[in-house]
Amino acid sequence: MALAAVNPDLARARTQATFDPLLLTYFIYDGPEKTKRKRFLQNLAVKDCKEQRFCRYAELSREEQYEESLRKSAFAVLRIRQLGLEDSTEIRFFREVLFSSEPHPFGVHEVMFIPTIEKQSTNEQRAKWLPLAERFGIIGTYAQTELGHGTFLRGLETTATYDPRAKEFIINSPTVTSAKFWPGGLGKTSNFVVLMAKLTSNGRDCGMQPFLVQIRDLETHQPLPGVSVGDIGQKFGFAAMDNGFLKFNNIRIPRENMLMKHSQVLEDGTFVSPKNDRLLYGSMTLIRSQIVGSCGRSLAKAVTIATRYSVVRRQSEIIARTDEVQVIDFQTQQYRLFTLIASAYALIVAGQVSTQAYLSVTKETESGDFDNLPVLHALSSAIKAFSSWEMMFGVEQCQLACGDHGVLLASGLPKIYTNEVPACTYEGENVVLCLQTARFLIKSYNAAEKGKQLPSLARFLQAPKGEKNKLTKKLELDQLIAAYEHRAARQIQEANARLQSHLRRGVGAAEAWNRSSQSLVEAVVAFSQAFIVQAFIEKVTSAKLDPSLSAVLVQLCQLYALQGIASNSGQFLKGGYMSDHQLEMVENKLYELLAALRPNAVALVDAFDFPDKVLDSDLGRYDGNVYEALMDYAKRSRLNKTQVHEGFLKYQKPFVDFLKSQGAQSKL
Amino acid sequence: MALAAVNPDLARARTQATFDPLLLTYFIYDGPEKTKRKRFLQNLAVKDCKEQRFCRYAELSREEQYEESLRKSAFAVLRIRQLGLEDSTEIRFFREVLFSSEPHPFGVHEVMFIPTIEKQSTNEQRAKWLPLAERFGIIGTYAQTELGHGTFLRGLETTATYDPRAKEFIINSPTVTSAKFWPGGLGKTSNFVVLMAKLTSNGRDCGMQPFLVQIRDLETHQPLPGVSVGDIGQKFGFAAMDNGFLKFNNIRIPRENMLMKHSQVLEDGTFVSPKNDRLLYGSMTLIRSQIVGSCGRSLAKAVTIATRYSVVRRQSEIIARTDEVQVIDFQTQQYRLFTLIASAYALIVAGQVSTQAYLSVTKETESGDFDNLPVLHALSSAIKAFSSWEMMFGVEQCQLACGDHGVLLASGLPKIYTNEVPACTYEGENVVLCLQTARFLIKSYNAAEKGKQLPSLARFLQAPKGEKNKLTKKLELDQLIAAYEHRAARQIQEANARLQSHLRRGVGAAEAWNRSSQSLVEAVVAFSQAFIVQAFIEKVTSAKLDPSLSAVLVQLCQLYALQGIASNSGQFLKGGYMSDHQLEMVENKLYELLAALRPNAVALVDAFDFPDKVLDSDLGRYDGNVYEALMDYAKRSRLNKTQVHEGFLKYQKPFVDFLKSQGAQSKL
Repeated sequence: MALAAVNPDLARARTQATFDPLLLTYFIYDGPEKTKRKRFLQNLAVKDCKEQRFCRYAELSREEQYEESLRKSAFAVLRIRQLGLEDSTEIRFFREVLFSSEPHPFGVHEVMFIPTIEKQSTNEQRAKWLPLAERFGIIGTYAQTELGHGTFLRGLETTATYDPRAKEFIINSPTVTSAKFWPGGLGKTSNFVVLMAKLTSNGRDCGMQPFLVQIRDLETHQPLPGVSVGDIGQKFGFAAMDNGFLKFNNIRIPRENMLMKHSQVLEDGTFVSPKNDRLLYGSMTLIRSQIVGSCGRSLAKAVTIATRYSVVRRQSEIIARTDEVQVIDFQTQQYRLFTLIASAYALIVAGQVSTQAYLSVTKETESGDFDNLPVLHALSSAIKAFSSWEMMFGVEQCQLACGDHGVLLASGLPKIYTNEVPACTYEGENVVLCLQTARFLIKSYNAAEKGKQLPSLARFLQAPKGEKNKLTKKLELDQLIAAYEHRAARQIQEANARLQSHLRRGVGAAEAWNRSSQSLVEAVVAFSQAFIVQAFIEKVTSAKLDPSLSAVLVQLCQLYALQGIASNSGQFLKGGYMSDHQLEMVENKLYELLAALRPNAVALVDAFDFPDKVLDSDLGRYDGNVYEALMDYAKRSRLNKTQVHEGFLKYQKPFVDFLKSQGAQSKL
Repeated sequence: MALAAVNPDLARARTQATFDPLLLTYFIYDGPEKTKRKRFLQNLAVKDCKEQRFCRYAELSREEQYEESLRKSAFAVLRIRQLGLEDSTEIRFFREVLFSSEPHPFGVHEVMFIPTIEKQSTNEQRAKWLPLAERFGIIGTYAQTELGHGTFLRGLETTATYDPRAKEFIINSPTVTSAKFWPGGLGKTSNFVVLMAKLTSNGRDCGMQPFLVQIRDLETHQPLPGVSVGDIGQKFGFAAMDNGFLKFNNIRIPRENMLMKHSQVLEDGTFVSPKNDRLLYGSMTLIRSQIVGSCGRSLAKAVTIATRYSVVRRQSEIIARTDEVQVIDFQTQQYRLFTLIASAYALIVAGQVSTQAYLSVTKETESGDFDNLPVLHALSSAIKAFSSWEMMFGVEQCQLACGDHGVLLASGLPKIYTNEVPACTYEGENVVLCLQTARFLIKSYNAAEKGKQLPSLARFLQAPKGEKNKLTKKLELDQLIAAYEHRAARQIQEANARLQSHLRRGVGAAEAWNRSSQSLVEAVVAFSQAFIVQAFIEKVTSAKLDPSLSAVLVQLCQLYALQGIASNSGQFLKGGYMSDHQLEMVENKLYELLAALRPNAVALVDAFDFPDKVLDSDLGRYDGNVYEALMDYAKRSRLNKTQVHEGFLKYQKPFVDFLKSQGAQSKL
């Protein structure tokens, strides 16, 4: 497509901004230097994509996506090495262009297989396997989940039985449900796995242990004898990934292939138990904090697409017999999009704040102080759940906001939805995570009741007193934070009361917990949102910003907080904490903020600084030339390879001819 | 797959029901006779599918789905004629098995093209075209939407210019944005369209008019000269449908091809204006009422799948060191699923009640009484929007409730989500519909303020007095209805107040409306939910039911109503209409209802009476043999055609060999 001028509506929208979006870009990418570096790397990647002629997934079949993904993966590895990139953030920016919301078959090799070998091997094992894995001499995945079993380790059925005579483990999949199922890259790409299996040695159940198991021949890539492996079929998104199944029929692996940093099996079969490993706890916390930020980025992509398109798109009229209106001028559309822009910023900031908190707590743990780790762990689980749900609903709203065209794969939105929403289940299913955090909160709440001092992140969990919120028309930021903290404390108090009341009536502890779990989850959601509101407001108010930018960011903070109050108003009204009058004010102000943000909408999404290649969207193009792009996309449809589709000759024509031969004897 | 016994957990769940699900099946399918007929037809269709060896879309590529869909469509037409089916409900039941949540390329021909010819033609036109269309001698679609323009008729750009000398219309697509875009069956299947185009005759703008335009040769199926037509590319779902684009380069059609029942162009180019057509208004009302029921059915499918799977699936533990628990025993899962079961029944019933209301109002209109039509029209728009949104969120929750496996196409859930959620935009985009209804409600509200008598469906729209809700632990059904009516009236009152306040401050009417539109939409949602709660309760309490069934249905009504109160609690608390204490009771009762419904969960979804073929889900199978089915599905994945995928030889091996040749010189 030839370069065209920017769509005039979009160009005009950019001139209306009251702040310089570049300043906001600096704010979220940590200053001008890092922004420059990010842009440099992403520009390189854009150039690479062009030169390599990587195809667009929206136009490929599943098999083609898998192949293209292999090609891109191989290219990415070599190119990143050639560029000497080592910083994980820099690598992420580079990859983001090549694999925009797209999984890749080497992904689990890089983020799970190699790190597991690093962390769970003995020194000898590391020396043997790590260099091999790093040069892809073996390609592996992490095989834990089974067809019938999820993240609950004790439920897994795959067995590893030690045979002391041969000094080997016998690996077996005794049932249908014991088949490994879902690991990424397992179906067609991997020749090795880290296998989680239930170890038996000398007749003793030694729990779940990790084993390094070869599954395919390193040369021919054929599955080894006794190994049944393959792809698990078409999914909602994730087409480029060969998620796989894997069954073993009593295959043998050497004793040395158990990863023995923690547990060990000696030659005679003696099992040596592990010491406690608190650092694992830590790395989960880090990963979850990072997911919060990446949910923010996913939402940011979707809302960038929907906002730009809503400026370009004209539809219907507000004032009769005038031009069709830019759909972004409808208040209902502003409500949808601007609250999501605020959300995206809030989540990105919350991810940064909690990652930062992780790093400082890690320093404490290095000096032997583990006090703050549980709070942070509880917090990161909760906000991971909250942010992935918020992202899911948000991306869905963006798609609705784009009407019919949002459904075209060329909009980029279905890919974001299908490939990012799994964040709700990976690294801990959201409900399960919320309930873990609930345990911590209930414990903290009861400790606070007994007058114990709580860690700062949970300090507001004291029984809410009879105070009232003092929010006025000025939308005082401290009152907004206070409102969320009060609500969270109150929700936790109520969930705890429910739990205690079951216990008092003689319900067993486990069942009482279960019967309170829905309200516990809701309390954790309130807790998460309180953290995010606070983190967003504090980051914005503590940063040194140009007043023009600061004004807009404060509006975003307010919008984010107000919308959460308006849509959960009962939890703020309860007990008379807020008044009907305040709630009405909250709603009025919310609508005023929508109007106030209108001139800045495009600048706010431009500031996310996504190259077009990352958005991969005909609707979200920076130049706004939406319709030409969609028409080009349409013309390239595979069904258009021939003017007359094969199906016409095979089925339609014979059918029509048959009806014709019958005459008009029968009616529809 | 060999027939296996029913999964024991599922079998046991069925024995626990306190009522006979068949009685509930009779309740929703209108008695034993109609149920019998439904089952007879669906069994026939199941047998047909087997004999014809129709393939499963979850295992096909897009092109294959299109072809298979043509084959099935042709088969369905012939078979339905052969069976002599004429009743639209019976045809729907038969088709539901063949095309479960799947679009088909002849669909628009049957539901839009033919009916438009019927309704908008003169007698001569009807005589000429209808028989031809009915025997598929011409196959058409309805081409209104354009690339740059949606449902707003006045915005369309395609032109039809009358040439009185040749007595022809010249059809043209003057811009990129004027291309027709999206019509179903347009891309590859249709050879005709009903085209909506902006008519100019004798230099006069005569507005949008319908034309019958041939686009492909009836024999060769090649596009006619001046016609550019094709498929629009891959979408989120709807793979089997060739949604298309269509551009005209000044092609000519005879004057007789304008559908002239209403407007006419005489030979000399004189334009004759139409009379008012109120019946169109009526048919939209009917279609929207039917969408409400079909959203209920879509949700019912999804929740049947998720509920059965939640009984079969075991995961984690409630009491430590006991067996893994059926996930349906987690309260959080019950909350998700049982509220959706209640929703599905509520929407199905609401669809029936409003369709019934339509039929009785139609009788009134036939005797010249149009008074109730506007209310009903407003109502059907609102509940169409409400129910499609509710379905969307519900299907999404069902998918989350199934964890990873819910994402496999074999779960059936992605198909329901992608192919049913468009109900949010077709037959009127939801927000637009809500705002139409808002106009009616605001008018009614102001009329009531002036003491005017309102039609019964809107009677509760009088300014809410200072009364309090009297709900007690007994969960009085009339108090639940009263609560929803009060809330709706209050929300409308508030939205109106907002509107009036903008007007008072001198904002123009159109802009004041726009600035109140988000609160108007929320008021319409409250209005819709009030109708649905009332319809559900009244249908259940007025039906003659076995007490065992009636008890469970009343629980469902209560659950549905309570959950709506709990999740919009602020709107019920405001003004002190409900107390904190009542709200707490609402929540406690809600959790009690979840536990009470647990033994009936499977019976409640069994009663929807979907054959496995309709669910098309390995997770939702009646026999619960989920894992065997999933493993079979996995093995049939197209990526498993060869053990070693082509991509390995093309990209992976060369890459690995290259890295090997480089030695371990570089690190990851």
